[in-house]
Amino acid sequence: MTEPRAEDALTIGVDIGGTKVAAGVVTAEGHVLARLRTETPERSKSPAVVEETIVGVVRELMREFTVVAVGVGAAGFVDEQRANVLFAPHLSWRREPLRDALSDRLDLPVVVENDANAAAWAEVRAGAGQGVDNVVVVNLGTGIGGAVVLGGRLHRGRYGLAGEFGHMTVVPGGHRCECGNRGCWEQYASGNAVTREARELVRAESPVARVLHQAVGGDADLITGPLVSELASKGDRACVEILEDVGTWLGTGLANLAAAFDPELFIIGGGVSEAGELLLGPARTAFERNLTGRGYRPTARVVAAALGNEAGLIGAAALARETLPDREH
Amino acid sequence: MTEPRAEDALTIGVDIGGTKVAAGVVTAEGHVLARLRTETPERSKSPAVVEETIVGVVRELMREFTVVAVGVGAAGFVDEQRANVLFAPHLSWRREPLRDALSDRLDLPVVVENDANAAAWAEVRAGAGQGVDNVVVVNLGTGIGGAVVLGGRLHRGRYGLAGEFGHMTVVPGGHRCECGNRGCWEQYASGNAVTREARELVRAESPVARVLHQAVGGDADLITGPLVSELASKGDRACVEILEDVGTWLGTGLANLAAAFDPELFIIGGGVSEAGELLLGPARTAFERNLTGRGYRPTARVVAAALGNEAGLIGAAALARETLPDREH
Repeated sequence: MTEPRAEDALTIGVDIGGTKVAAGVVTAEGHVLARLRTETPERSKSPAVVEETIVGVVRELMREFTVVAVGVGAAGFVDEQRANVLFAPHLSWRREPLRDALSDRLDLPVVVENDANAAAWAEVRAGAGQGVDNVVVVNLGTGIGGAVVLGGRLHRGRYGLAGEFGHMTVVPGGHRCECGNRGCWEQYASGNAVTREARELVRAESPVARVLHQAVGGDADLITGPLVSELASKGDRACVEILEDVGTWLGTGLANLAAAFDPELFIIGGGVSEAGELLLGPARTAFERNLTGRGYRPTARVVAAALGNEAGLIGAAALARETLPDREH
Repeated sequence: MTEPRAEDALTIGVDIGGTKVAAGVVTAEGHVLARLRTETPERSKSPAVVEETIVGVVRELMREFTVVAVGVGAAGFVDEQRANVLFAPHLSWRREPLRDALSDRLDLPVVVENDANAAAWAEVRAGAGQGVDNVVVVNLGTGIGGAVVLGGRLHRGRYGLAGEFGHMTVVPGGHRCECGNRGCWEQYASGNAVTREARELVRAESPVARVLHQAVGGDADLITGPLVSELASKGDRACVEILEDVGTWLGTGLANLAAAFDPELFIIGGGVSEAGELLLGPARTAFERNLTGRGYRPTARVVAAALGNEAGLIGAAALARETLPDREH
């Protein structure tokens, strides 16, 4: 039996977020041939349970496809060897040797990467950032994932932990964050921020939140980010304002990142970005208003991600392919 | 007449800050053979006046030394061609073609670089960052200058404007900054912050500022950063607290930068850093307290710059040397 040519070989990408696991079989061109999606077990986000979930979805996909490697994008701090999850604010992981555990059980090469790095790599290789060498990617999901491509390469940082923009303080003494700090950017510009604000309005029985209140029958816990986006797109003013506020915080933070990194392009991805211009319009306004040196410098573009919620798994699959030894990629 | 060998050739480095111009003749090893220092003209910081000042100091140094190139570090946004000063918050410069103007008048190759980039390069080549590939440099002068060395190279950003950390917002709606924004980091962690806080205490005739008040005969305008450092080193509690506050803001901002860049080393330079541990102690405490993922990640070191206020001119001179065509550096 001959090995398939590298350009024909398939890899599996797995994206582990705060609330879900998505996996897919991906071609060298970035096409997803098959996909599986499951919730991250709510009760127990222990390493063993999540690992079991990953092994389950990969084996399920391997029933129909022969693959040569697996890439995992995880919502956490992944070390510079791309082997261990050091810390995952939204999962109960601490120094987990995920790569070796998965590789042993799956008998395949495995690479673990921060989920935002994986998604960014997908956007630069096959999405909104093609052909651009200096890109900052901000993914608004449960929290904020970030990634930096400088000179056409992922900048992982000395210890693999660069791009954790969500935990930059934007409001001293502000909202408590799971990371242990207060006022982290992701407390103001993320899916959690959208639902927190909407729930507060409903719980307070604010008259401005009448439509929201009705939509969930008064049960604030039922409010989700997509619901807020949907009501906003139908013109509900409270939901429009929530997205404006979150967009404004997004743009303010982008101005901070422009001061630090000076990229050519910002790509905004993640579930919240599906609100589209309701979010990105206010974000661009705040970005341009807060960009230091505005009027005297080129202004980076701010665009929506192109690959949607499959960016993470497509990027993880691409990184798995590129990490294979002795093969043409 | 033969050309001097590259390793024997001398270059001149010029450092233009918010309040002074420093220049020196520098060897390939980074030794300063001769130096000149002059105030930036207070009344008129126009490009013509500053250019005249630079030409004056360079010609003065060239009376005694033969040099092959001139490097200028300027406290402003320098474009990616390292030719034009786009914007200088502390000088009245807007899109100034400084490189070509100087090169024409001096008849020598000239390179213009952001002053913090120049100082950072000096520290990495000959100072506190030797042998370290991922370094973030924060210079506390009139404002904050920043620079990033990634993988052993200066990261200038897409348009040459990376590292403008001083204009990252740390306090929404906070102190007004010359850059046009509010709450910029350099309003809280810089020489200006030290003097502003000290002056406010003296003007308010605060009982805690008795020593400060006496030291300047009640004239708050006479307060300088070095005076505050001096009184702090003698144990004056108000001055110790001012440096603690500024150090705490410094450390908080470093934690933000660690989240974004994940360096191995932070180097703190600039005039304010001469306060030493009175500043760096509180900075390290705040850094470690605010570092996201603390306890689950390696912690970058925070050290003082080694080259003092000559780093800018040494780095500018090194960059001038390295930019020369057809020579061994």
